[in-house]
Amino acid sequence: MDENVTHSEAPARTVLSPSLRSAIGAFVVMDVMREANRLQAAGGDIIHMEVGQPGTPAPRLVREAVKRAIDDGPLGYTDALGLPALRERIARHYADAYGVNVSPSRIVVTTGSSAGFVLAFLALLNPGEGLALPRPGYPCYRQIARVLDLVPVPVAAGAVTGYAPTPDALAAAFRDRGARAVVLASPSNPTGAMLSPAALGLLVETAREAGAWFISDEIYHGLTYGAPAATALAFSDDAIVINSFSKYYSMTGWRVGWMVVPERLVRVFERVAQNLYISTPTASQVGALAAFEAVEELEAYKAVYARNRDLLLEELPRAGFGRLAPADGAFYVYADAGAITDDSAAFVRRMLAETGVAATPGVDFDEEDGHRFIRFSYAGPFERMREAAARLKAWRG
Amino acid sequence: MDENVTHSEAPARTVLSPSLRSAIGAFVVMDVMREANRLQAAGGDIIHMEVGQPGTPAPRLVREAVKRAIDDGPLGYTDALGLPALRERIARHYADAYGVNVSPSRIVVTTGSSAGFVLAFLALLNPGEGLALPRPGYPCYRQIARVLDLVPVPVAAGAVTGYAPTPDALAAAFRDRGARAVVLASPSNPTGAMLSPAALGLLVETAREAGAWFISDEIYHGLTYGAPAATALAFSDDAIVINSFSKYYSMTGWRVGWMVVPERLVRVFERVAQNLYISTPTASQVGALAAFEAVEELEAYKAVYARNRDLLLEELPRAGFGRLAPADGAFYVYADAGAITDDSAAFVRRMLAETGVAATPGVDFDEEDGHRFIRFSYAGPFERMREAAARLKAWRG
Repeated sequence: MDENVTHSEAPARTVLSPSLRSAIGAFVVMDVMREANRLQAAGGDIIHMEVGQPGTPAPRLVREAVKRAIDDGPLGYTDALGLPALRERIARHYADAYGVNVSPSRIVVTTGSSAGFVLAFLALLNPGEGLALPRPGYPCYRQIARVLDLVPVPVAAGAVTGYAPTPDALAAAFRDRGARAVVLASPSNPTGAMLSPAALGLLVETAREAGAWFISDEIYHGLTYGAPAATALAFSDDAIVINSFSKYYSMTGWRVGWMVVPERLVRVFERVAQNLYISTPTASQVGALAAFEAVEELEAYKAVYARNRDLLLEELPRAGFGRLAPADGAFYVYADAGAITDDSAAFVRRMLAETGVAATPGVDFDEEDGHRFIRFSYAGPFERMREAAARLKAWRG
Repeated sequence: MDENVTHSEAPARTVLSPSLRSAIGAFVVMDVMREANRLQAAGGDIIHMEVGQPGTPAPRLVREAVKRAIDDGPLGYTDALGLPALRERIARHYADAYGVNVSPSRIVVTTGSSAGFVLAFLALLNPGEGLALPRPGYPCYRQIARVLDLVPVPVAAGAVTGYAPTPDALAAAFRDRGARAVVLASPSNPTGAMLSPAALGLLVETAREAGAWFISDEIYHGLTYGAPAATALAFSDDAIVINSFSKYYSMTGWRVGWMVVPERLVRVFERVAQNLYISTPTASQVGALAAFEAVEELEAYKAVYARNRDLLLEELPRAGFGRLAPADGAFYVYADAGAITDDSAAFVRRMLAETGVAATPGVDFDEEDGHRFIRFSYAGPFERMREAAARLKAWRG
C-alpha cells in the first residue's frame, strides 16, 4: 500500500466525471412537474396538464385490497415474473378484451411500463443497434435507448403521415437505417392518434418481413373514445406487448405494469428482471389484481376524460391552439402552436408562470419539430379543465 | 408496400433471437425461491433460508402510515428524486446515525437498491469499462454490469484475504485490470463480514488515488452484532452510497431505497432516473418516511436475528457446515461446505427436496469458488431456524 500512496498525489486531485452515456436528455415533463409542484407548494393555484396521469386515486376496490393485504401478510418479494394469480388474471384479460389467447406463462409483471421498456431493449437489442421510434413519441423511448447504447431511428409520425409511420418509412428504417426493432403506441402519446386494426397489422407485418422486433406500447388501451384499440398480439405471437396499470386503471404512483413476451423468451426476461428489479412492488401487484374488477369506477373516470376532451377540442382553438392532433385515445391534446411560438419550452414556462397552467413542450416528444408543439394532458377533474381553458383564453385573448 | 411484401417471403420465417447481452446468469436465489414457493404451494413444510429478506412485515408505524395515505390522496407520481420530506429525513439520518453532514439535495430516492445499482453503473461507467467486485459478493452486481456492457473484475474477498479485498489487490484492479469503479458492501452479502472504519477508509483512499469511483453498498447497515458499520461518506464526499429500506427496515416487497451522490452529479442521476423509473412507488415512500420512527419495533426484529445467529453459529457446525464466515452483520451465514459437496447447486436442490430447508448455493455469489459454499439467511422466525437446524442435523447425521 505504501507504494500506491507514494505515487498517487496527483491522481488524488482528479475530479471524476459521470459517464458519457448518461448525457441523455431530461424527461422534460418531470422537470415541468417539479416546477409546478414547487409553485403549488408556495401557494400557487396550479392546474396540472403536464403529466400524463389521472388526478384520481386507484379505484376503491384496489385501495381496499391493498389495505387488506397490508393487514394480512408480510408483503415480501414475489417471484420475479410476478404473483401467479396476477399473471393468470392478465392472461385472461386478453381473451376477455381482445379475443386473443395468451398463456399466463408469457406474462411478465413489471415495475410500470418503464421497466418494460428497459427489459425489452436489453433483452432484444445489442449495443449499437437501431430502434425505430415514431416522432413525435414518448420521450423515454429514445432516452432509455441512448443510455443503453442503442441508436434511436426517428420515423415521421406527424400530421403529414397521418400521425403514424408509413409502412414504407418503417421498412426503410429497418432496411437502410440500422433499426432492428420498432416501438409503436396506439393510442399514441402525445397525439392520441390511433391506428386501425388493418394499419397496425400492416406495421407488424413490415417488422416481420424485415426480421425486426415489434414492440407494442399498449399503455393507453381502454382509453379510447371511438373504436377500441387492437393489440399487436392479434397479428403476431412474436410481438412484445408493454402495458401498465397507470393510465386506464389510474395507478401511476403504484408503479405496476406488465409485458406479454414470446414463450421462448420468458426465461430471458426473467433472468434480466431478477437481476435488475428483483420483483415488482408486492402491494401494487395485489392492487392490480383487484383493478380488473373495478370496471364501473374506471368507466366513470373515463367518462370525465371524454367530457374534458370535448371541452378542450372546442376551447383550445379559441385560446389560439388551433391545429390539434386527432386525440382518438389516451388523455392528450397535442397542439401545433407554430403560429404563436417557435420555442415551446420557453412558452410553457411563461404560461405556467403567468396562468398557473402547466403543460409539456413538444421538444420532449420530438427533437426535430417539437419546438412548435405543446401537449395538454386532460386527465384532471372537469372543473379544472374548464378553469384552464378560461385562463388560457384570457391570457391569449 | 407491395414491393416489400413481394421480396420478403424468406425473412418472414426468421426466428428472432434475444440479444447477446441478455445472456447473463440468473439471480439464482430467485430461482430457488420460486422452487421453494412451488413446493410450499403443493403442501410442503418449507423453511425459507434462501432469500435475504425478513419474514416480518414492515413495522406497524409504516403500515399505518401507508393505509392513511391510501385514504388521503391519489398517490400519483412523485418528483423523480423522491418526496422532499423523505429526502430531508434521509439526510438527517446521516447526522443522527453517523455524525456526517449530508444535504437533502444529494439524496436520490430509488426503487430499491436494485435501481441504485442500475443508476450508478449507467451514470458512472461507459460501455466496456471494468467494475471491481469483491468475490464472493451480491450476484446482481456482476449480472447488471454485464447486461449494461461493463466488465466485472473480480477481486478476492474470501477467507484468505480476511473476507475483504486487500488494498493492494484493489489498486491492481484499477491499475492493471481496467476497473474504473468498485462496489463494496460492509456488512457483506453473503459473508456478513465487516470492515473496520480504518480498513474502509483505506479502500476509499485506494479508489481515490486511482481516480476510480467508490460505490458503497450500505444496505445491511443497522444489522450489526458488534460495532456499528461506518459509512463511506465519512471518508469521501465523492463516494456513491446505495442503501435501502428492505433489510433493517423490513420492507423488501415495497421496493424503496436511496442513494447519496455528489452534489455535482445530482442532475445526472435525476435525468437517468426520470427516464428509466419516472419515480419510486409513492405509497412505499410514505411508508419509508415513517420507518425512521419505528426504532423500537425494528430493534425487536433485530434481536430475533441476533438470537438466530447465535443458534446457527452453534448448530450449523453440528450439521456438518463447519467453516463459517464471520457473520459480523447482515443476516447470513456463509458456510464452506467443501468437505461435503463440490456442487453447491445440486446440493441445495437435494437439501430442499429432502429436508424442506431452502438455502442458496455459493455459485450465485462467486463464480470461481462458489461450488463449495452455501448461504443460509437467518431472517426468519427463531422457531423456524431451530427447526431447520434440527432437520439438517438429522439429515446429515
